[in-house]
Amino acid sequence: IVNLSSWLLQGILERLDAGEIVIGDGGFVFALEKRGYVKAGPWTPEATVEHPEAVRQLHREFLRAGSNVLQTFTFYASEDKLENRGNYVAEKISCQKVNEAACDIAREVADEGDALVAGGVSQTPSYLSCKDKAEVKAVFRKQLDIFMKKSVDFLIAEYFEHVEEAVWAVEVLKESGKPVAATMCIGPEGDMHGVPPGQCAVQLVKAGASIVGVNCHFDPDTCLKTVKLMKEGLQAAKLKAHLMSQPLAFHTPDCGKQGFIDLPEFPFGLEPRIVTRWVIQKYARKAYDLGICFTGGCCGFEPYHIRAIAEELAPERGFLPEASEKHGSWGNSLSMHTKPWVRARARKEYWENLKPASGRPYCPSMSKPDGWGVTKGGRELMQQKEATSEQQLKELFQKQKF
Amino acid sequence: IVNLSSWLLQGILERLDAGEIVIGDGGFVFALEKRGYVKAGPWTPEATVEHPEAVRQLHREFLRAGSNVLQTFTFYASEDKLENRGNYVAEKISCQKVNEAACDIAREVADEGDALVAGGVSQTPSYLSCKDKAEVKAVFRKQLDIFMKKSVDFLIAEYFEHVEEAVWAVEVLKESGKPVAATMCIGPEGDMHGVPPGQCAVQLVKAGASIVGVNCHFDPDTCLKTVKLMKEGLQAAKLKAHLMSQPLAFHTPDCGKQGFIDLPEFPFGLEPRIVTRWVIQKYARKAYDLGICFTGGCCGFEPYHIRAIAEELAPERGFLPEASEKHGSWGNSLSMHTKPWVRARARKEYWENLKPASGRPYCPSMSKPDGWGVTKGGRELMQQKEATSEQQLKELFQKQKF
Amino acid sequence: IVNLSSWLLQGILERLDAGEIVIGDGGFVFALEKRGYVKAGPWTPEATVEHPEAVRQLHREFLRAGSNVLQTFTFYASEDKLENRGNYVAEKISCQKVNEAACDIAREVADEGDALVAGGVSQTPSYLSCKDKAEVKAVFRKQLDIFMKKSVDFLIAEYFEHVEEAVWAVEVLKESGKPVAATMCIGPEGDMHGVPPGQCAVQLVKAGASIVGVNCHFDPDTCLKTVKLMKEGLQAAKLKAHLMSQPLAFHTPDCGKQGFIDLPEFPFGLEPRIVTRWVIQKYARKAYDLGICFTGGCCGFEPYHIRAIAEELAPERGFLPEASEKHGSWGNSLSMHTKPWVRARARKEYWENLKPASGRPYCPSMSKPDGWGVTKGGRELMQQKEATSEQQLKELFQKQKF
Amino acid sequence: IVNLSSWLLQGILERLDAGEIVIGDGGFVFALEKRGYVKAGPWTPEATVEHPEAVRQLHREFLRAGSNVLQTFTFYASEDKLENRGNYVAEKISCQKVNEAACDIAREVADEGDALVAGGVSQTPSYLSCKDKAEVKAVFRKQLDIFMKKSVDFLIAEYFEHVEEAVWAVEVLKESGKPVAATMCIGPEGDMHGVPPGQCAVQLVKAGASIVGVNCHFDPDTCLKTVKLMKEGLQAAKLKAHLMSQPLAFHTPDCGKQGFIDLPEFPFGLEPRIVTRWVIQKYARKAYDLGICFTGGCCGFEPYHIRAIAEELAPERGFLPEASEKHGSWGNSLSMHTKPWVRARARKEYWENLKPASGRPYCPSMSKPDGWGVTKGGRELMQQKEATSEQQLKELFQKQKF
Repeated sequence: IVNLSSWLLQGILERLDAGEIVIGDGGFVFALEKRGYVKAGPWTPEATVEHPEAVRQLHREFLRAGSNVLQTFTFYASEDKLENRGNYVAEKISCQKVNEAACDIAREVADEGDALVAGGVSQTPSYLSCKDKAEVKAVFRKQLDIFMKKSVDFLIAEYFEHVEEAVWAVEVLKESGKPVAATMCIGPEGDMHGVPPGQCAVQLVKAGASIVGVNCHFDPDTCLKTVKLMKEGLQAAKLKAHLMSQPLAFHTPDCGKQGFIDLPEFPFGLEPRIVTRWVIQKYARKAYDLGICFTGGCCGFEPYHIRAIAEELAPERGFLPEASEKHGSWGNSLSMHTKPWVRARARKEYWENLKPASGRPYCPSMSKPDGWGVTKGGRELMQQKEATSEQQLKELFQKQKF
Repeated sequence: IVNLSSWLLQGILERLDAGEIVIGDGGFVFALEKRGYVKAGPWTPEATVEHPEAVRQLHREFLRAGSNVLQTFTFYASEDKLENRGNYVAEKISCQKVNEAACDIAREVADEGDALVAGGVSQTPSYLSCKDKAEVKAVFRKQLDIFMKKSVDFLIAEYFEHVEEAVWAVEVLKESGKPVAATMCIGPEGDMHGVPPGQCAVQLVKAGASIVGVNCHFDPDTCLKTVKLMKEGLQAAKLKAHLMSQPLAFHTPDCGKQGFIDLPEFPFGLEPRIVTRWVIQKYARKAYDLGICFTGGCCGFEPYHIRAIAEELAPERGFLPEASEKHGSWGNSLSMHTKPWVRARARKEYWENLKPASGRPYCPSMSKPDGWGVTKGGRELMQQKEATSEQQLKELFQKQKF
Repeated sequence: IVNLSSWLLQGILERLDAGEIVIGDGGFVFALEKRGYVKAGPWTPEATVEHPEAVRQLHREFLRAGSNVLQTFTFYASEDKLENRGNYVAEKISCQKVNEAACDIAREVADEGDALVAGGVSQTPSYLSCKDKAEVKAVFRKQLDIFMKKSVDFLIAEYFEHVEEAVWAVEVLKESGKPVAATMCIGPEGDMHGVPPGQCAVQLVKAGASIVGVNCHFDPDTCLKTVKLMKEGLQAAKLKAHLMSQPLAFHTPDCGKQGFIDLPEFPFGLEPRIVTRWVIQKYARKAYDLGICFTGGCCGFEPYHIRAIAEELAPERGFLPEASEKHGSWGNSLSMHTKPWVRARARKEYWENLKPASGRPYCPSMSKPDGWGVTKGGRELMQQKEATSEQQLKELFQKQKF
Repeated sequence: IVNLSSWLLQGILERLDAGEIVIGDGGFVFALEKRGYVKAGPWTPEATVEHPEAVRQLHREFLRAGSNVLQTFTFYASEDKLENRGNYVAEKISCQKVNEAACDIAREVADEGDALVAGGVSQTPSYLSCKDKAEVKAVFRKQLDIFMKKSVDFLIAEYFEHVEEAVWAVEVLKESGKPVAATMCIGPEGDMHGVPPGQCAVQLVKAGASIVGVNCHFDPDTCLKTVKLMKEGLQAAKLKAHLMSQPLAFHTPDCGKQGFIDLPEFPFGLEPRIVTRWVIQKYARKAYDLGICFTGGCCGFEPYHIRAIAEELAPERGFLPEASEKHGSWGNSLSMHTKPWVRARARKEYWENLKPASGRPYCPSMSKPDGWGVTKGGRELMQQKEATSEQQLKELFQKQKF
């Protein structure tokens, strides 16, 4: 049933131009944190060197689930970030080693299924600490050199809160001549300097991105709203680009402009927000209807969430992913259960309409996000942190482009 | 810091007798279902043959997280079950191959950290369809032969709803001369024939089990209540045994006698019920205070949940697991975050008291369990299943020991 | 349609003995607190003197709603209570005046519809501060004298947390020769000294009560459980009595032994717990099925809740209350609405199955009750009260029979 | 303490012009429905004739709670409405009698405290069924004639969904020469024809209204947002008017453009949404800060909610209402409670921060509103109504200005 080989002879743009649906992969830092290989806080990917088998296995699971693109596990792998945050790693691991290993692992697994490999860069401490354009670009270029040496198939600039930095990243990546995708971790309110999504998309396309969209920070519905605004911005500017969406697998109806980081549950209490596979099937359909042809996920997306995209869009694509051998459509694998009331769940209407309970009657449904100047709670919590005075924090923030 | 080798020179009973804390592993079928290697419904472990690398990796993650015991992935791997349900597997894989591979993989990983390997059996279709004692015992013996050939360190009979069958399993496993642990998937109301937990424990110990307790079907708090009743039953009968607890990692305050299977969310909508690592830390402490020395998890338990047990009990045990290199105590890895309100989360009081929101304002907190004769909803759903008439179902159930 | 006159020629026991359904009234202190005539905290009924028109109007509303019994508004109107708590009333109003006025008002309204008047006593500060039996009985006798002078139809001893005091009250009231009903504000766990409900009922009947049951402190479902235990206790003791139930109109699945007083929402944040009329219809049916023939309500019960009892039991009783002229059965008054989707709500199935939302996504579904030694939160809050030291409180409590 | 007489020598505009805070009254149809005198669905006020004592008592409670304005209970008392809907009333009661009685009762009670009487008109069936301007105006004029005969102090046009009809009402009322207030039952999205709030306000002021604002349909926070938009619209148009707000006492964060009518809980399942007195205190403060000087309530507002406004603004006004004799500030009447943990609730911080639980773990926090073409659920429900075909409904709606 599953034969990808003929499909995969072409590059990312050829496929998208031909109207094919491309499925991305899921969230590495969250999945590997739960598996014990990534530290929350720094979120750096030294596991590519320390535990390649764990990274390889996760790539493989996404491939089996239907991913056509394997992103190198190079999130926060810029040299400045690794130096800044990575110092908890006993034996210092160089930026070069981390990025090279990431490319090798992704390629090894991609070849198991003929998927494409995308080299990825993300926002940098250099930008946040007001380094100039040349310095920030140098940071991206260092990673790009490795991607080129390792012959990735195309490039993704992802997880940018400021369109200015994203544009710089795209400009650097374009130097390679490879196709470039660019996604920002913003919501409908736009980037941290207040640039609305439509304008962000226009700037990114003008900088050279062939694919634009969003990733992380917001739940699927919110991400689709943002991409819709990007699409309208591009249409108004008479620009053309492919659209891409890689949201969280967490429900975040209650978060503010800066997304789930500000929710009190981030990052160690997000469990009750994890979306079901059925929510992802609805998301995949809506994304498709909106004209998004590169659909994947970010933090919280496990392999079964990616499989849900592939299963929802199987009629359009004409095939199922390998991992569907271990999954029935809309719960039909329950039709052999010994209990009749469990067998009664083996149908689409059941799962489509289920309102799943949290089992937590002492917890609320929504939270107020913390945040600078936003909530009293946030300020109080902060005041309890003795190490840093409020004044120091303000100065710190004013110095940053935050 | 982490040196397990000297600790691990001894067998399970020597350790427990010496007052050591033994940490079990987590839930394989649920974790591997999400990774794409197990089919919900049948829940059979043919992945040991089809995808040994995936099973190996999960074992390894639990080992890194602190597990001292790796259970062979032989849940529902009895011959009758594999024949009954496993027929969706394209190429038929024999019971022998599945069990042998499971032993080999567990041993390979256990040797990476000197953990013990436990061969596991679970309840059988033969019992439910009223086969006699000899026939049911023959099913267990078939698996036991393989475990002996592969030299597992000890044996676990787990996931039994009827104490009668559990006793038969223990009797078979005791033929080997190895230590035997036995856990039932029951709550405080007792087994499916109405035998209360205390009496179940007594019967199991009299049959030869050295370790008794519960696994699966209920959340941590409920499991601890059940083990407490078992402990009291043993004390009243002046019997001695070690206590064991491997609960779900889902909140299930609302389930009935038969546990989470009857909840409308089972098995594809349980996400909002997933417990945080902090809930597990509290569970580990309560289990320890109750005198439980073999503490692990079942369905829903991911490696980071097992790590939470190991971190909570690190003061008593004197060491941290390997995976704690990628984890700070009580969120302290957030202390370097750029946002002050996220830094303010780097403390125990914060996570201990957080009431995490579900992000699902249109969903309830609790559900009514479905079930035979229990809920109108259940009956209606069942009536919608055209394939099987209510009469047929009743007959089916009367024939079964259900 | 509504003709009560022939029905009402008889006394309470003749009616109950003849198998008739008697409907009580609702909660005065809560309703009049919201209307501005009773002070939460003291909860004393000086409004009978200060604002008779307000008390009269509330009686009248309950009468219209279907009440066959109007209780004199003499809750907490014992002399010791009025002196103890009532001192905030500018001009001191005597116990005698309050009780006399209460009788006059109830009789005036009862005559508008031929309902019965019941004189009511409730638990006293004298008992809680360890006065002896004679002293406590003298307090009840003082109120009884007034009830006799004013010729009430029968007597109710209600809202007792200790069966010992309730028995004393019944003994005093029995001196009158009038029928006596007795209800305790306890749950299934029994009274504050640990006497279980069945035993409480036996003691009350032996003391002379012809009608026993519960009122206040718990929601309808919990009250029915308690009355069931009382019924079983009486059956075991081969005693006969009529059963009575007057619960809260608040959902309290989360409260402890001492009921809703300990919930953090008591008394000024209980709004989200208020039950709908449909919950009361179900309660009325369950109460009837359980053999309860005197069904009313307590705190939170508004006239429309009482009407719901009368409407649910109209088929058995053969008539509707006056206020049903302004109410359609199961929402059928919506059938003329201009919006079709509102018209679609004009049917029983709709309201029976509605799961009403709170509109409060930032609030939980259940609370942990405060309480002495029960919750850390409770202790902390208490410690913040500077006026009274913890030691003082302990002494206070030890002196009391609490 | 409470001396209103000197304050009340002046008319509504003199007071507002002088910067005084005027407190309106609460919701009559909902309160009287619960008391048994108004029928949900028709919602007509024939109780003024049938049961004047009940209407009088409710006016009196609002007066005691702090209302400075008593609105005649003439909601939906236009002749066309009474004929259209009032036919369930056995003996037909004329429009004239209903309106006259309403004026007499309001004046009688107002004189007990020197409050002002406002004659009120609301939207008409004539407008919805496309009668022309002259016909609609004639309907309002009929009520106005009675108000003039009965010498009300000023006039209020309230509960209009279409600004066009509201303007017509204001134009008629202005013929009297009395001050006119006008409130619409709209949210931030504007009226049913899409006219935004700011523009509505401008039209109403140009038509002659001296006071403009909103009433009903939305919760306090939403109403304040709408009034803010009105204020901004007036400022932009360089017009001056006093602002007025009379919201629901229900939490409705989840309702759509047409407000709480479309919520599935309307009107018989709204209990869990009822706001506490503390929410009203916050609302009163925010309204004051926004420059609203005429603050009251609509459906769901009970006397204690009005008292909460008066208590919150007591520092600014210099006095408390009569009913505060039966109420302590921020729960301080609990300071004498026997239980220390209840005494601990006698403080502002406690009630201000309480997140009250619903006691309903099987219910959600928010609902999806029903509505024409909005929800699948709404359509399905409608299809189940056999009496009226979908086609008939469409035609009906097209004929209406809905």
